[in-house]
Amino acid sequence: MKDKIKVIGFDADDTLWKNEDFFRAAEDRFAVILSDFGSEVKLKEELFQTEMDNLKILGYGVKAMIISMVETAVRVTENKVSADIISQIIGFGKEILYQPIELLPGVEEVLQTLHGKHQLIVATKGDLLDQEQKLIRSSLSEYFHHIEIMSDKNVHSYKKLLLHLDIRPEEFVMIGNSLRSDILPPLELGCYTIHVPYDLTWQHEKNVDMIPVSDRFHEVAKLMDIISIIN
Amino acid sequence: MKDKIKVIGFDADDTLWKNEDFFRAAEDRFAVILSDFGSEVKLKEELFQTEMDNLKILGYGVKAMIISMVETAVRVTENKVSADIISQIIGFGKEILYQPIELLPGVEEVLQTLHGKHQLIVATKGDLLDQEQKLIRSSLSEYFHHIEIMSDKNVHSYKKLLLHLDIRPEEFVMIGNSLRSDILPPLELGCYTIHVPYDLTWQHEKNVDMIPVSDRFHEVAKLMDIISIIN
Repeated sequence: MKDKIKVIGFDADDTLWKNEDFFRAAEDRFAVILSDFGSEVKLKEELFQTEMDNLKILGYGVKAMIISMVETAVRVTENKVSADIISQIIGFGKEILYQPIELLPGVEEVLQTLHGKHQLIVATKGDLLDQEQKLIRSSLSEYFHHIEIMSDKNVHSYKKLLLHLDIRPEEFVMIGNSLRSDILPPLELGCYTIHVPYDLTWQHEKNVDMIPVSDRFHEVAKLMDIISIIN
Repeated sequence: MKDKIKVIGFDADDTLWKNEDFFRAAEDRFAVILSDFGSEVKLKEELFQTEMDNLKILGYGVKAMIISMVETAVRVTENKVSADIISQIIGFGKEILYQPIELLPGVEEVLQTLHGKHQLIVATKGDLLDQEQKLIRSSLSEYFHHIEIMSDKNVHSYKKLLLHLDIRPEEFVMIGNSLRSDILPPLELGCYTIHVPYDLTWQHEKNVDMIPVSDRFHEVAKLMDIISIIN
């Protein structure tokens, strides 16, 4: 691997910076504000169901989550939810967009070490504007040669990315916290992959049974550990 | 211009296919459903104000419009709007995402004529997933070498696009219906531009006083007319 790699792809949310924590906090507040209409578990299940139903047309990201929360509030209250609660839900959904960027441990050291030796890119999904703005606020832009914001991270979208980068699969290594989005699709294409698990994982991203067995798959406990594998 | 152009950029919404009509129809329904709380003019003004306030964090596209409609409904009714109305508003917002693609006159002929002679790309803004899906549904993908979905169409984003395409400004011509988004920024960079006005223009896109005077600016009545300018 060490001799072949030309481009290193980093996932952004929960790989470079904290993200899932903010979505979870919004979910918690959603369950609290509607607690008259169901248990926390039930309300979160209903929200997840709405998000899955909407995924195909609304995609990933904060805006889709806000719309799904409002729809779920209307449904679980059987049209009794007040406008005031709707307004609060939109408010704490939008707050996610204003969160300060909190880099995960080792991010800057890793990027400094690899920068110049390899081409570094970000490959992320979610709302276009939100992801662009987070990258600007992170002050990490200067390390990256290219930012790819994908509507979904699947085999098709990674194939397009390789084509765009004009490299072969074995010249690319993808690094991220989600087996579903960051590891399995590039692995299927023949890329190298390094899984760096994060404490919190959204149910949708966890929805993968198996840990891959492949000499192109590595798992490390913290981002700093990728250096010895790649360098 | 004819000898220099390497890449032709097409805006998508209201240049390749109908779009603004669907947003306008949703606005009309918004005003009807809330008619107890204000005149049509006043309600649309309030909605536009919310959209402008949200633009910086929610960006362009259907999801941002849905959230802005719900927020406006809460505000103009002073928290009296019913959950049922909220639900209907989200419903007709989401309907925009399901509209069949209706190509504008001459689109296929123009793309067939120019394809192979120049590199054709799409440069559009809005929701990532929605724009990708519209392109697939349009069956026009095969004509395009590259699809650029921008969070905003300004000088900075066109500069990045030229860098990505590795061409000089005078090797690029941008074609679209919006002076603000498709014409003025690339013109400022030294690109060629062709304005093809559409019957309906969103107030935000119209918010431009002057028609540019430049030998790199053309205006035509219909898309077919670009052929004689470019070819």
